[in-house]
Amino acid sequence: MTETENDLVLSRTYDAPRAAIWRCWTEPELLMQWFCPKPWFVSEARMDLRSGGEFFTRMNGPDGESFGNAGVFLEIVPGEKLVFTDAFTPGWRPSGRPFMCAEVVLKDAPGGKTDYLARAMHWSAEAKQEHEAMGFHDGWGKAGEQLEALAQSL
Amino acid sequence: MTETENDLVLSRTYDAPRAAIWRCWTEPELLMQWFCPKPWFVSEARMDLRSGGEFFTRMNGPDGESFGNAGVFLEIVPGEKLVFTDAFTPGWRPSGRPFMCAEVVLKDAPGGKTDYLARAMHWSAEAKQEHEAMGFHDGWGKAGEQLEALAQSL
Repeated sequence: MTETENDLVLSRTYDAPRAAIWRCWTEPELLMQWFCPKPWFVSEARMDLRSGGEFFTRMNGPDGESFGNAGVFLEIVPGEKLVFTDAFTPGWRPSGRPFMCAEVVLKDAPGGKTDYLARAMHWSAEAKQEHEAMGFHDGWGKAGEQLEALAQSL
Repeated sequence: MTETENDLVLSRTYDAPRAAIWRCWTEPELLMQWFCPKPWFVSEARMDLRSGGEFFTRMNGPDGESFGNAGVFLEIVPGEKLVFTDAFTPGWRPSGRPFMCAEVVLKDAPGGKTDYLARAMHWSAEAKQEHEAMGFHDGWGKAGEQLEALAQSL
């Protein structure tokens, strides 16, 4: 595991099979159910699962907040690894402000569980600090618990 | 052709076959012969021709200047299209300052010639202006002539 100073990492073992967690990450109708910590929610998700394909989500808050997150996938290893970034929109168009590249890595763990690694790699120390201040650890942690519960139910 | 305000584009028809131009772009020992306008020269070229694979060149000037350019390929369509960027180093590590994403598109033209499109897409108007001031049009144009001559000789 490469650890660098501009990374934020969530590492957990979830009590759900790897295939179910993969489905929750790659099927839009499932992703929408866990991707935001409640009471926030996702109202749109578009996932074109190939390198350069669109990854768009719209996150909404309880007070009417609404944020679209545009990006693309960079790498997909089915069942194992997903990499995406907001640095591009489809067609490899540079986006306004490259903020992060994220990778999600799944590995089988004993007892039908899954080792889950989510890494957010930032272009600058400022972006990392901003992400921490936005609540990376708490937010990705809570969303991960929602992911685990949904995967268990499949 | 999508044209946006932060792009710089070189569009030419070269009198050389598409397959030869593709070789000049993708074989390091050939790339080194044309990639810099003389008297500048390339002393190192590493090309791992897959999405996320390394694209590194070192450019050297007549007065001892030496600049390493690190990046990765994003998309490769053999014989037709090559996309690369300096926004990442291998492992999808965000690089210090994302400057540009470039695409090279080759199409057959009548008479065994090749329509050649090289597009540099920048993350900001400042980066585009900087690239223009560095001599994009003259530099990419001269390098392209060297590419054409090398491809004719293959």
